[in-house]
Amino acid sequence: MDREKLDGYLVANEITILYFIGFLGGARLLTPKEGENVLYVHRVNYEEAKETAKDCRVELVRRGENVDLKLANEIKRLKLRHVGLDSIEASVYLKLRKALKGVRLEAQGKLVWELREVKDESEIKCMRKAAELTDEGVRAAFETIKAGLREFEIAAEMEYAMRRLGSGGVAFDTIVASGVRSAFPHGGCSNRKIQKGDLVVIDVGATYQHYRADLTRTLIIGKPSTKQVKIYRIVREAQERAFQSIRAGVRTGDTDAVARSLIEEKKYGEYFVHNLGHGIGLETHEPPTLGPESKETLKAGNVITVEPGIYIVNFGGVRIEDTVIVQKDKAEKLTKAAYEIIV
Amino acid sequence: MDREKLDGYLVANEITILYFIGFLGGARLLTPKEGENVLYVHRVNYEEAKETAKDCRVELVRRGENVDLKLANEIKRLKLRHVGLDSIEASVYLKLRKALKGVRLEAQGKLVWELREVKDESEIKCMRKAAELTDEGVRAAFETIKAGLREFEIAAEMEYAMRRLGSGGVAFDTIVASGVRSAFPHGGCSNRKIQKGDLVVIDVGATYQHYRADLTRTLIIGKPSTKQVKIYRIVREAQERAFQSIRAGVRTGDTDAVARSLIEEKKYGEYFVHNLGHGIGLETHEPPTLGPESKETLKAGNVITVEPGIYIVNFGGVRIEDTVIVQKDKAEKLTKAAYEIIV
Repeated sequence: MDREKLDGYLVANEITILYFIGFLGGARLLTPKEGENVLYVHRVNYEEAKETAKDCRVELVRRGENVDLKLANEIKRLKLRHVGLDSIEASVYLKLRKALKGVRLEAQGKLVWELREVKDESEIKCMRKAAELTDEGVRAAFETIKAGLREFEIAAEMEYAMRRLGSGGVAFDTIVASGVRSAFPHGGCSNRKIQKGDLVVIDVGATYQHYRADLTRTLIIGKPSTKQVKIYRIVREAQERAFQSIRAGVRTGDTDAVARSLIEEKKYGEYFVHNLGHGIGLETHEPPTLGPESKETLKAGNVITVEPGIYIVNFGGVRIEDTVIVQKDKAEKLTKAAYEIIV
Repeated sequence: MDREKLDGYLVANEITILYFIGFLGGARLLTPKEGENVLYVHRVNYEEAKETAKDCRVELVRRGENVDLKLANEIKRLKLRHVGLDSIEASVYLKLRKALKGVRLEAQGKLVWELREVKDESEIKCMRKAAELTDEGVRAAFETIKAGLREFEIAAEMEYAMRRLGSGGVAFDTIVASGVRSAFPHGGCSNRKIQKGDLVVIDVGATYQHYRADLTRTLIIGKPSTKQVKIYRIVREAQERAFQSIRAGVRTGDTDAVARSLIEEKKYGEYFVHNLGHGIGLETHEPPTLGPESKETLKAGNVITVEPGIYIVNFGGVRIEDTVIVQKDKAEKLTKAAYEIIV
């Protein structure tokens, strides 16, 4: 706040509220530079917030009260003049703008991400556990998958394996995209029956204490074709080289370029239709982004995904992804599932 | 748009985009009053959008292009003067505001909800299926639950049962809140071991074609106490009376009052700490809200939850919830799980 000359900060994103005070279900968090943090909570979550939330005063938003007018009054009472905002809905912004004439409100989501991007020891512990649970999910897929089963049945087995072992749910909608559907990077999972010779992209993530992991493997059911093997090997090598390039101080765009240049060299550049990876933590997609235009510098404690892919419409796709942590001189894979291809 | 004198409408909420064009993964949808709808899609989802999205032209957002500047140019090209906005992030609003001097941008989320609130036949079919799958989840919980199992293990069984039968995932984080934790309405599920004599609140929802259901039952493990039975009966009666009061033309606040007045009469009013219910559809919480201050009029085709509860800190809680559809002269329950209490 000093650096940005703010005398207060307002958070409306409930995940950022969770990050700061350890409770999911707050409506707003007001953090004055001096003095006590105030968590605004509706009555439905009030008792749980009082028991769980740390480092803040818990303020009940009563029936009929408007949370934004309530916190506008607190901002006036504290005489804050320059308040930073995390992500906030336009209609809320306009309401605050109107209620707080004379107060400078400034979008400063970046400030929060500077903190959230670098994971501390306790966060890393949760992410290791989420990654372990995710590995168990993929193991269940390897054990179950065969021609004739439907995509959602594989998802059911993976999610069940993770959940029974203590996953808090899924980090995102599980993808089991088979055959021509594997050419859609976000293909979800349908009731399509998996067939012999299919490429099957499996993308899954467990959660632990709200922290997430993200893992993709691509399988081939039965005997692979020459082209399938060729594409698989290119993606696998691109992923490994990119992984080897990661350490603190490296530019995000340079890591993307390691994978992309190999895929381009092999003449599949136009089929790598997304970024190499993204940060992950309490949300599945966080900064930093690892794409061709990314200019951030990786820091020790960043947790990111490394996930090159090649997607050929009407043929199929291959993606291989791990969740890795950036360290001073190297990166470490948190997800450790085997890179088997043939089932 | 005529009524609000708009000549265009901009949607940034990906669920509303899904509602209009049947594809999940669009970045923005621009709907001019006259002429073609334009769906803006990043490259990662472009091929799938071209195959899936209906009633629109699919426009690729190339690497390095900014989607909001791109659509601002389209708004200028079409000479739109007054554009309605669905929910949109403040930073996006400010960017558009700057790029579109002379164009009136107006928050008009209400317009979309007037449409989304009333479900048509094809939507109702999906919601019936989601409700059936949810019933199967609760059935699995009834069959599995016993003292000594952990809350998340019950969630695992429910989610597995729903997923194997074709649920697209969960509508929200499953709640299995036992013992004193059942007094937290949004208590999630923990690794607490369920004990004899516990109240256990189970709140779960399946999805089908992205449509959702929402169902809560409260169980008692073993012999219930007099107070547990008393509270359970009050909540159950409040839920049934509220359900019986629902039909097209009734005010949302009046339906809440039917349940709330009974609970107040029994001296538990202060423990009913949330609204009676909420709309549900492609999202779990949609308009209309059914709370004490709600003033909407129910319409045939609204799908809503009816979920009174009593929560006593350090004792436990009871909530009973069904997803119901409003019809001309009555309401119909889509969720049909038994109201068993003792397991």
